[in-house]
Amino acid sequence: MPGWRWSWTPPGTGTWSWSPSTTWADGREGQVSATIEPEIGWVQEGLDHLATLVDPSLPGWSRTGFSVQDVEGRHWVAQQMRAAGLSTHVDAVGNVIGTFEGTAPAAPAIVVGSHSDTVPGGGRFDGIVGVLGAIEVARALRRTGTRLTHELRIVDFANEEGNPQGVKLVGSRAIAGTLGHDHLQATDEGGVSLADLISRAGHSPEKVHTCRWDRAGLAAYLELHIEQGPVLERNGAGIGVVTRVCGISTFHLDVHGRRDHAGTTPMDTRSDAMCCGAAAVLAVQRIAAAGSDTVGTVGALTTTSPLTNVISNFARVTGEFRSPHMAGLRALAEELEADIPRLDAAHRTTSSLSWGHTDPPAVMDRHLSDVVVGAAATVGHEAVRLYSGATHDSVQMSQLAPAGMIFVPSAGGRSHCPEEWTELTDIERGVRVLIQAVLDVDTGFAGS
Amino acid sequence: MPGWRWSWTPPGTGTWSWSPSTTWADGREGQVSATIEPEIGWVQEGLDHLATLVDPSLPGWSRTGFSVQDVEGRHWVAQQMRAAGLSTHVDAVGNVIGTFEGTAPAAPAIVVGSHSDTVPGGGRFDGIVGVLGAIEVARALRRTGTRLTHELRIVDFANEEGNPQGVKLVGSRAIAGTLGHDHLQATDEGGVSLADLISRAGHSPEKVHTCRWDRAGLAAYLELHIEQGPVLERNGAGIGVVTRVCGISTFHLDVHGRRDHAGTTPMDTRSDAMCCGAAAVLAVQRIAAAGSDTVGTVGALTTTSPLTNVISNFARVTGEFRSPHMAGLRALAEELEADIPRLDAAHRTTSSLSWGHTDPPAVMDRHLSDVVVGAAATVGHEAVRLYSGATHDSVQMSQLAPAGMIFVPSAGGRSHCPEEWTELTDIERGVRVLIQAVLDVDTGFAGS
Repeated sequence: MPGWRWSWTPPGTGTWSWSPSTTWADGREGQVSATIEPEIGWVQEGLDHLATLVDPSLPGWSRTGFSVQDVEGRHWVAQQMRAAGLSTHVDAVGNVIGTFEGTAPAAPAIVVGSHSDTVPGGGRFDGIVGVLGAIEVARALRRTGTRLTHELRIVDFANEEGNPQGVKLVGSRAIAGTLGHDHLQATDEGGVSLADLISRAGHSPEKVHTCRWDRAGLAAYLELHIEQGPVLERNGAGIGVVTRVCGISTFHLDVHGRRDHAGTTPMDTRSDAMCCGAAAVLAVQRIAAAGSDTVGTVGALTTTSPLTNVISNFARVTGEFRSPHMAGLRALAEELEADIPRLDAAHRTTSSLSWGHTDPPAVMDRHLSDVVVGAAATVGHEAVRLYSGATHDSVQMSQLAPAGMIFVPSAGGRSHCPEEWTELTDIERGVRVLIQAVLDVDTGFAGS
Repeated sequence: MPGWRWSWTPPGTGTWSWSPSTTWADGREGQVSATIEPEIGWVQEGLDHLATLVDPSLPGWSRTGFSVQDVEGRHWVAQQMRAAGLSTHVDAVGNVIGTFEGTAPAAPAIVVGSHSDTVPGGGRFDGIVGVLGAIEVARALRRTGTRLTHELRIVDFANEEGNPQGVKLVGSRAIAGTLGHDHLQATDEGGVSLADLISRAGHSPEKVHTCRWDRAGLAAYLELHIEQGPVLERNGAGIGVVTRVCGISTFHLDVHGRRDHAGTTPMDTRSDAMCCGAAAVLAVQRIAAAGSDTVGTVGALTTTSPLTNVISNFARVTGEFRSPHMAGLRALAEELEADIPRLDAAHRTTSSLSWGHTDPPAVMDRHLSDVVVGAAATVGHEAVRLYSGATHDSVQMSQLAPAGMIFVPSAGGRSHCPEEWTELTDIERGVRVLIQAVLDVDTGFAGS
């Protein structure tokens, strides 16, 4: 891949383009970026170490956001950043940030990050691979004496996976300025707010405004992550480049039936909220399965009484739809809404569908993605473009800077479970592409 | 209805038959039983008073077994028995028993009873009508100076409706000798055993053996109850006579799926335990609806995680089937079992079906039922024979003595809900038939 002249325009002010040049901002004219090899043994040690910092009361490798284990894990991450020569600080919501100054102090930062928290019952790779990969970029640069023109900023985002208060992407929201009062005041079932949760971990959520980053100071955002799905493995591909991150619409359906004696009420006169709720679970499945790139999942079907001798007078179905396109999300919602009267008629119930928050699909920057594809080619790998069904900190970061993501395969497409697995050779390949992409962005990424 | 000579053979030792006679055991030769009118105003006052003894923390009219309100209610019931001239005692599990000696001390007792406890969120009539009706029998006899040949024994059975420990018919089981160690040691979610629950209400479950009655001392068991279903109302009938009480088979289906990321796992590769569980809920409904006299109800569909971003790896469906015939119960079970492989194949899950307890259908005594039908005719009402979908203390009592039940209509067929309602004129009709049935059993019921 030829070198590109670096110039900077804040994102959102125009379209991004590449302009060929033989003049390098740091004077490396005509030099083809050298391939820098990651020290994968260190990444493996990091994976192994973080896998020891887990909540023994939960299955799998659980290090949920703001837990004792999460605080300890992020402390270790900060140490590793410092050992790699980065200056570190922890912001008001717990984002761990390491910086490595560039040779051009006025140049905006190249941000590389992911998260080290997990879902309850999660695995050892989701997020963690990206944090260790980002630190290894800094380590590799230091090891090889390579200085970037831009500042390199590494982030371990706080609590990407969400919390019992129902807020995901906590750290990247704070950085993007989208973590609002409503988010911080959301409570869990015991009345503990997200602000409480963050405070108890030693941070200062009341100073959330200080977490915000200025987009003018940012050149690009890159994130290495496991795919968490089966596409790369199915296609025999080692590297994925993300085009879009799916949007998510959450909903709950409240079904009102009639409480009656389960022994004496004939089947044909019942208004059984449980049965209508069950039919809605299958409707969500059917509607989502009809699309090629849509999914739909019901997490819970709850009733007011678990007794088998009383017909349920109420049921709540809690679910979500995902699509990489806003039009797709809208179509899923319309189909479910159109289905409700049919379900109610079949079960003599009265249901109301409420939509929670909709996170719109996020589009990864096309030109930055081209850089990543090129970087993969430079280090000898073909990249597959795909969308992400899982959400990521890149969704928030894409509001501040051109964002791009590198995926590595997940064994069996599995994630958010103890069986989550990615081969070390696949991780090594991903880190190699990440290092090369950072070098290429540093030398050639331009906005116009 | 002509008079019948009384003679006694323990139940189970032969078939029951009626032998005409003009000789009355108490010397009332040739006398056609006079119609004794109930004092329905007193029954209404009783219904109103018990409706004030309810748990304010629960919806409807809740007086759950062994609760403070239940203890208070049963104290009031005992007072009313004594005011009616009955000798009372409370047995080791809390059954309130009132006796009125007959003129023939050797003659076995005619037992009349029901229960004054309710389900959580229940109504004001289920059980209570039968307890007040039974006391009104004693009051009416006393009011009219009528002495029975047999002992009249009135019972307010303890905790018919069951408890968080999962045991129904507690008092009548104790009397029938079927309340075992397993029942008493069953615990609720907090680890409180049924024995603890009974002890805390001031009783002595360790002396449960003292509650047992000898079948040789019993002539018949009669119970007045609201129908709790729609049959009488639909048929414009005021009095029902129960032929059978449905048997109940409880089950739970454990569905094992695969925990995966709900955003990244395509619909066609999922093993979603929630979806298979929902399909099982609808299968139970479909299987039960295929029969004319069967019902099936799922009380709960629970999963290990309520999150919408994780595919459920486990779901439990808890339900029951009811049929008035053992063969019907067996057929329902076989159909559900045959359905499981189909559901598993459709959802790529692995399910196992476990059957809990099966309460076999109970058959009410045919000849005693004939007496009740005759008693209804005597007081001017036509009785409809029907089966009971709800279970009753009569199931336990039928193991000790010929048992029969009188049903009065439930408005809209509704029960186990706050809207449960029976018109006072319907209750009055039922109590009138009950009084006449007791008189007819006293004078004419015979086993051979």
